[in-house]
Order: sequence, then structure tokens, then C-alpha cells
Amino acid sequence: MSRPRRLLILAEGRSGDPHYGKTARGVMRYRPEDVVCVLDTQTDATELEGFPLVHSLEEARKHEPTTALVGVATAGGRFPPEWRRLLADCVRAGLDVENGLHEFIGDDPELADLAALHGVELRDLRKAPPDLNVPTGENLTHDATSILMVGSDCAIGKMTVALELDREAQARGIRSVFVPTGQTGIAIAGWGISVDAVVSDFIAGAAEQLVLDGVRRGGEVLFVEGQGSLLNPLYSGVTMGLMHGSAPHAYVLCHKADQRFVEEDERFPIPPLSELVELHERISLIARPAKVLAVALNTRDLDEADARSAVAAAAAETGLPATDPVRFGAGPLLDALTPLLAVA
Amino acid sequence: MSRPRRLLILAEGRSGDPHYGKTARGVMRYRPEDVVCVLDTQTDATELEGFPLVHSLEEARKHEPTTALVGVATAGGRFPPEWRRLLADCVRAGLDVENGLHEFIGDDPELADLAALHGVELRDLRKAPPDLNVPTGENLTHDATSILMVGSDCAIGKMTVALELDREAQARGIRSVFVPTGQTGIAIAGWGISVDAVVSDFIAGAAEQLVLDGVRRGGEVLFVEGQGSLLNPLYSGVTMGLMHGSAPHAYVLCHKADQRFVEEDERFPIPPLSELVELHERISLIARPAKVLAVALNTRDLDEADARSAVAAAAAETGLPATDPVRFGAGPLLDALTPLLAVA
Repeated sequence: MSRPRRLLILAEGRSGDPHYGKTARGVMRYRPEDVVCVLDTQTDATELEGFPLVHSLEEARKHEPTTALVGVATAGGRFPPEWRRLLADCVRAGLDVENGLHEFIGDDPELADLAALHGVELRDLRKAPPDLNVPTGENLTHDATSILMVGSDCAIGKMTVALELDREAQARGIRSVFVPTGQTGIAIAGWGISVDAVVSDFIAGAAEQLVLDGVRRGGEVLFVEGQGSLLNPLYSGVTMGLMHGSAPHAYVLCHKADQRFVEEDERFPIPPLSELVELHERISLIARPAKVLAVALNTRDLDEADARSAVAAAAAETGLPATDPVRFGAGPLLDALTPLLAVA
Repeated sequence: MSRPRRLLILAEGRSGDPHYGKTARGVMRYRPEDVVCVLDTQTDATELEGFPLVHSLEEARKHEPTTALVGVATAGGRFPPEWRRLLADCVRAGLDVENGLHEFIGDDPELADLAALHGVELRDLRKAPPDLNVPTGENLTHDATSILMVGSDCAIGKMTVALELDREAQARGIRSVFVPTGQTGIAIAGWGISVDAVVSDFIAGAAEQLVLDGVRRGGEVLFVEGQGSLLNPLYSGVTMGLMHGSAPHAYVLCHKADQRFVEEDERFPIPPLSELVELHERISLIARPAKVLAVALNTRDLDEADARSAVAAAAAETGLPATDPVRFGAGPLLDALTPLLAVA
């Protein structure tokens, strides 16, 4: 990305939706310096989290964006015709387009031709690099300390925990790097590989490559974004490959405080946190038996008093430092990792 | 596959090599009725495991093959120029070509044009079907009993154990189906999905689809080919996704009797079999807590007395029925599964 990225976030019909707007919200929170405005024609609001909310591409252009980012997940991860028209209009307006859905815009001949005509780039954040393979073993020999986020389910805030830890570490003068492993992390950091989109034989190899990229970017401490959950049968393969390929020295266990079932499915009760700690330690790489060193709770849906009780209960049950890093700061989590960082 | 498949197995330079000739040997052993001859120009032998070994395509054509099967893994899973010439000659000779490498022959424009010209098919066994997605949950609601092979490493005979169990079950009049999850299994059975080649988000979805295909093919008992190992960090993601997506009712644990390290790497000692039993049971789907019901040992590199001791030791250590199904027959393994089959 050569020119400074000034993002127009496309949040059509979904700017108010926390689940489907994960990418939009992640970028607004953790890369605010790149965002110039948000587009949603289906709302009357004029502001979203401090950013101008605009209702047409014309209006958006006054903020001089360079790049349109697909900020919301469309139904089924595909682009319906009205989205396709919007993307074409962005291209005609001279904007690069970044997209993290499984459907690749660069593979659409019309959009690709149009982009060539207007001299703009179509970037598919989830598209795997072509040179992947199985791990080489360098994941066990680099000098950095890598910390992987793991958790009780998808979409509970593992990326957020990694980003909060990275911010806190940098504030303390630690040379840390956030290692993005999914489309939103990539949209935030501007690099990375979406490990859920690589050929499954190469998940671990992609995870290794990401960690080595983090080292090359100057990381002495790497906070690796987690994906899925060993408990979630839809994505556990990705989680496992990421665990073994990133070869972490330690884990932070993430959990949404009030959630009892994986994907809200009663056939899949989430076991006690202490069991989750033991499960992840048990399945660690034989050559690098990593431990869970802290518990990060997402207390978004609890009031302050309940959040504090949940944190205290998690700490008591696991015997580990626990907190909600968004609500109360990531300090206690980073403190818990510090002995490991000193040793490394 | 409309016309009867009469296979010419391409084993160039590798017909004597048990590791790189896995596909060739698997098809010769478990689908002998389809094989007419084996081609290897680099050997003087004239016979391989009872099949004619020929030294030119001319000689092969006397056996009237319909299909050439790439039977060996080339270096790096790519086709060097001499292989490409051989495949083109096969196409010119009117043969369909089946290939299980990660490099797809159907994507080669020259070969594809040539195949169209000669009216033959190029079948890439590892190519994922286009309509994959995450599991729907039907893996938990069908009526068949599914048994998954798991193991201490790759390439220790998990596919062979599934095939031997399937044979034994059919001999006993059980309506069983072998469910192929990798390229050799697909070459043998003529259907299947290579789960290591799907987008990693869809491993579990592909595994579910395979199981449901097995049910549609009349399987009341499904013997699902295993892939990789939870212990092998190169492929553990695939193993995990297959475990959760195929939602087995039970496992057969496979191990090569004399092997001490994963991939012969001393940093990765294989834990005791009893720990492996517990590990797989521990990581089972929460909604279907499957148990290991038997241990299948590969004693290929042991003499008969050592093989019998290894089997006895495995049984004593795990408290489970154990045997080498290739050497001593799959009967004891199937006996161990029988209570489950009766309940189902």
C-alpha cells in the first residue's frame, strides 16, 4: 500500500449492527487514523462512533477517501447486485477497494476490467498467497515470544484482546507486533493471511509464515490473533492448525462472560474455564508445551457490578489473572505475561 | 465414471518405493480388479505384486487400459517436464487421466486442450467440489454408525485399517462403506473428497458431506479414512476438522509399532498409547463424546514374534483389543466395534 490509506467504510444497511459490522467496527476502533467516513444509505444517523456517517458516494467523496473497505458481512458472504453496483461506483470514483469476504472481487471480470481502466487496486484480504506450504520448523527457532489468543467460541473478541495487549505493550515500550490471522485483523494492520481461507494442508504453514513475518516486522513479542475455537466444531480445524503452526510460548484464554453454549447451541455446553485451560495446554505442540497465563473476559453484555463479579469468579476458578481488557484495561493480562517476556 | 475403469498405473521411477508409491500400492491391493498394468521405464522387473510391469506406453496399450492413474508422488507434488510429456502421451493414446497431486492437471491449458481434442477426461482427485460450506448439523442426525481412524502420525496405515475393517464387515454381511478422505482412498473407491485440499474453513463441512455421502451409498456402518494426526503439527488442523466434522461414534487408534517420534523428529516423541486414547476422547465433539474402541498396529517392519509382542503390549497398556489387521486379520478390531453396531 504505497499511498496513505484514507478509508471510506462501506457499511450499507448494517452500520448499526455489531455482529455483521465486525470489520467496520474493528477498523474504526483500532485504526481510526485511517478512517475518513462511513457510508450507509439506509440510516438517518449522521455520525457513527465519532466518524461522519454519509448517505451517498458523492457525499463520501468530500472526505477525500483513497480506498473503500467492505466493512460488513453480506448474507452468505456473497455480493448481491446492489453491492456489486456500489463497488463498481467506488472503482469509477477512483477508489481502491478492500474486501474480506470469501467471494473475491478480483475474480469478477467486470470489476477487474473496470479497476484496470481506472487504475485502482482490488485487494481481497482473504485471498491466500500463492506460495504456501507446510511449516519448515522455523516457528520453533526464531527469537521472539509469541502469545496466541484462544477461546471458548468464535466472535467473542479474541482479535480485540490481541490488539489491546499490543497497545498496552507498546505503551510500555515493548517491541510488540499484532499478528493478523483473519480478514478484520488484516484490514486493521494492513498485512496478514486469513488462515481460514488457505488450503487446509497449509493452515499450519500459513500460521508459521505469519509469525515469521511478525519477527521480520521487528516484533520481539507477538500477539497472534486467534481464530475459532477447539470447542466450535465448525472451525476447530483452523484453530488447531493455528495453535500448532504459530507455536506460541503461551496462551491467553478468551471467553464471553455470559455465554453458556457454543454458537448458542444447547448440544454444545461450554465446559468450565479450568477445563478449557487444561484442554489447550494438553493439545499444545509436544516440542513447546505452552501454558495459559491469563484469562480475558468479554463482559460487554453485563453491567459493571456483574462484570467485576465475573472477572473475580474467573480468576478464582482458574487461579490465573483475569480481566476484561476493553472495560478495565489490558494491564493485568500483560503483567501476567511479563515473566515469560523477561525470560525470552 | 461411465465406462469400466481399466487402470494403467503410472509409477515412473518409483515402482519399488513403498512411501512414494502409496497410491499405486493402495489401488493394487484394494482395487486389483481395476488394474491392468503398471508402467515404470526405470526398472528391469516385469511384474509388481502380481501385475504386469511394462516399460513403455506402447507395451501398456496391449493391456487395453482406459485410464492412466498417477500412482506416485513426484518431488514437491509437482509434475516435472518428463511427467508432463508422459501425461500428454497418455491423453494422445485416448486414456483418461486420474491425478491425486496438489498440482491439478485440469488447470494446465495444454493438457486440457489436448484432452478436449482426444475426448478424454482429466480427473484431479484432490480438487475440492465447488459447493462446500461449514457443517449443517446433519452429521449428528443420520442413522449410520461412523467409525473414524485416528493415529499417532501420517502415513502409518490409517486408510489401510479402514479398508480392512470394511472388507471384514462386508464379509460378515454388514452394510458397510469405506469413506475416502484423501487422494489414494478416492483412487481406490472412485469417490470422495480430499479434505486436506479444501479451504480450511470448510474441512469440517467436507467431512460431514463425506459421511452423508456414505449414508446415501447405503452405508449403515461407515469406516472413515483418517488424515494426519493430532500429534503431527503439519497436519493436525486437518485431523481436528475431520474429527469434528465426521462426528464419529467411535475411533480406532492406529500406530506404527516401532515408531517413537512424529515424522522421525526427536523433538516430537509419541506419547504412550494410553495417553493417545485419552487425548482423542478428550477432544471429541462435545455433543458426541466418542471413545477409542480398538488399537490397530502396523507391524510391517517387525518379525512375527516381535509383532505378536507389540500387539500384546498395546492391548495390555490400553486395556483395548489390539491387532495388526493386515498381518493377523481385522476380525478382533471389528469384534471390538460390534457392541456399538448392535446398539445403533
